[in-house]
Amino acid sequence: MLKVYNYEKLLPTDVEQLVLRNTDPNNAIQETVIEIIDQVKKDGDIALKTYASKFDQVNLEQIYLDKDEIEELALTITRDQQRALEIAFQNIHRFHSTQLKRERVTETMPGVKCWREVRPIERVGLYIPGGSAVLPSTLLMLGVPARIAGCKEIVVCSPPQKTGKINGFVAFCLTLLKIERIYLVGGAQAIAAMAFGTETIPKVDKIFGPGNQFVTKAKSIIQAQTNVSIDMPAGPSEVLIIADETANPAYVAADLLAQAEHGSDSQAVLVSTSDNLIEEVNKELLTQIQVLPRKETASAAITNSFAILTSDLKQAISFSNQYAPEHLILETDSWQSISPLILNAGSVFLGHLTPESAGDYASGTNHTLPTSGYARSYSGVSADSFVKKITFQQINEQGLQQIGSVVETLAELEGLHAHKNAITVRKAML
Amino acid sequence: MLKVYNYEKLLPTDVEQLVLRNTDPNNAIQETVIEIIDQVKKDGDIALKTYASKFDQVNLEQIYLDKDEIEELALTITRDQQRALEIAFQNIHRFHSTQLKRERVTETMPGVKCWREVRPIERVGLYIPGGSAVLPSTLLMLGVPARIAGCKEIVVCSPPQKTGKINGFVAFCLTLLKIERIYLVGGAQAIAAMAFGTETIPKVDKIFGPGNQFVTKAKSIIQAQTNVSIDMPAGPSEVLIIADETANPAYVAADLLAQAEHGSDSQAVLVSTSDNLIEEVNKELLTQIQVLPRKETASAAITNSFAILTSDLKQAISFSNQYAPEHLILETDSWQSISPLILNAGSVFLGHLTPESAGDYASGTNHTLPTSGYARSYSGVSADSFVKKITFQQINEQGLQQIGSVVETLAELEGLHAHKNAITVRKAML
Repeated sequence: MLKVYNYEKLLPTDVEQLVLRNTDPNNAIQETVIEIIDQVKKDGDIALKTYASKFDQVNLEQIYLDKDEIEELALTITRDQQRALEIAFQNIHRFHSTQLKRERVTETMPGVKCWREVRPIERVGLYIPGGSAVLPSTLLMLGVPARIAGCKEIVVCSPPQKTGKINGFVAFCLTLLKIERIYLVGGAQAIAAMAFGTETIPKVDKIFGPGNQFVTKAKSIIQAQTNVSIDMPAGPSEVLIIADETANPAYVAADLLAQAEHGSDSQAVLVSTSDNLIEEVNKELLTQIQVLPRKETASAAITNSFAILTSDLKQAISFSNQYAPEHLILETDSWQSISPLILNAGSVFLGHLTPESAGDYASGTNHTLPTSGYARSYSGVSADSFVKKITFQQINEQGLQQIGSVVETLAELEGLHAHKNAITVRKAML
Repeated sequence: MLKVYNYEKLLPTDVEQLVLRNTDPNNAIQETVIEIIDQVKKDGDIALKTYASKFDQVNLEQIYLDKDEIEELALTITRDQQRALEIAFQNIHRFHSTQLKRERVTETMPGVKCWREVRPIERVGLYIPGGSAVLPSTLLMLGVPARIAGCKEIVVCSPPQKTGKINGFVAFCLTLLKIERIYLVGGAQAIAAMAFGTETIPKVDKIFGPGNQFVTKAKSIIQAQTNVSIDMPAGPSEVLIIADETANPAYVAADLLAQAEHGSDSQAVLVSTSDNLIEEVNKELLTQIQVLPRKETASAAITNSFAILTSDLKQAISFSNQYAPEHLILETDSWQSISPLILNAGSVFLGHLTPESAGDYASGTNHTLPTSGYARSYSGVSADSFVKKITFQQINEQGLQQIGSVVETLAELEGLHAHKNAITVRKAML
């Protein structure tokens, strides 16, 4: 059952408390992670093999699989499963292909031309979680935009299964992405290997992907201490659903539970203008949760979550903007009128027939999204995340005449005389 | 004098060493910065006033200036200076206005629509360094894209001058930007104030701007420990110039010195196909440096820098790509043929008449750029840095029919049954 709060009765400080997520950086594991990073930096592949036997309970002779083995494993899944992954691949590809555009040249003054050009990040590292849950969808969500961006080297790390291999779903996605090698490395050690490189694993420029708290901690340490960058900070997954009396309680409850099954620290928030709907959703939750294999987890997450009763949809959006949810679902007939008011969210699902799980897998949008309020300043992963936009400028004689004295004046007032001189020597020879 | 290396004689490990910048995170100041952050978090405005008297040697009754005072100060600069700042403002505005575009809707499958919408980051904080050097240009480089993005609240912090005010150049830029308040706070305490908020200074979602090592350290701590984000990591400024026998040694030397005067830790790298040019540039450096007010600083920076002799321009670009310079100048008649080969750089200056100082002030491109090799994975600041791109999706009945079983199959293979159920409950009622 969701706890219910009445928005009108909440003080600003109550709202602040409700929108606050647990962002405990878990310093308890800090030392362990630093030790793992240091070991990988020092011993390279040997450290990775030691950790594989310690954490993944497999002895690896070789820490990667190549094309032939990947193709063989890809054949072990059913044609239906292949087809589903193919369609997800296509939709993700179709949407992400629209994201990078050639930009036109701007002549800011006669003879002064400025523009941006897109260049791929040369070497990217993708971390695909494994272990209990295996997430081929994450490989598609990171691999497709990396391919579209044109990254020269795509390094994929994923923990080995008990067999010392990867599962068929991940293998099939690798074939779709034309990635011919996967490194059997998981956890903080995978992040360290991609950040520093080992005998076998190439050092990358940017690391992407979700993971457990060790992976997250390792990414944050890498970001602070090296010049390898990361996609974004990560926290537990979350959904906020805005629903009014036009919503179907069964749909709303199903969407809340889809979020709740991710982990007991997930948040599933309902904001509604209808107390009747909240009541009906709470009833549905009790029924639907019974049949879930991850019932325990979902139940714990629901207990940590809450519902807010607002007097109108505008108030609902206002709370949502303060919360800045990773996923926002608008289950109301009026979604078109309130959608422009959305300021902070990772990905938005509009109307009664657009569940979050569609976007998690196959609508085409990316599921690597900002959590814990980071949606206030971060976008989700897109093709943009795999490129740089470099600015170019070209000035001709006319341009230098136009801009020269402006630069000289500004350099002088900032006390930078060599900056000024770079113009002066040129003007002298025109 | 620049040390000269012959590229063909360098081992890969030598090149690795040459492209490595000093990225010492300076842990010596870590404790001081943490203490400042804690004080500001605890005591708010009182801490800020204490630090102003300690570090800036001024006693502030009020830690901000408002519109009237700003306008008054703006009148203290000459009309020529105003005009130069106006032109810089216009050019920066013209170029940055082209950067945000409405994107079209993609129908990934019939009835499944996906698109991105741009939303401003609501509250941004701009740090404008002051003290010895005052940098109105930085205020324009950050304020203009913030305005174009439509940020609701633009918080500007800059250390107070000895007068307890700001200088006229910064004041005039504030009037151009229609920013009606500036907070007289500098250093790590300014970063802390914007990250946590005080009685007077609003908490922001993202912090931008360069600064000394205390500012840089504070930004990195804030990024790791709060959900306030930052523009990018910062290091000493740098330029790499690619020049062949068509280059003018006086221009090249002037551009190297413009970089060198920033600080003794700046790097000014020359990569040339002509040993004659390198020799001539070294002569010019000796002459030109004599008349510089910042001669000492520039001389130290040149000593830390180097020249590389390559056998052709392709090799020069290859070294540049490994170095990933903040600023890259192509002083060769053949700039058009090698510019497409550039992979890693912050901002690029093409041809003999496009000095870096033009981009530092007035060409229109941004001067807040990735240093220390971060250009491998980061872009410079642009209007994009002040917005999020939120993904939206909307599925109708036809779309749900198309995509439903795909999502069900994928959710099941990942073991997420509640994800599957969010589709199943909807399909049942179609």
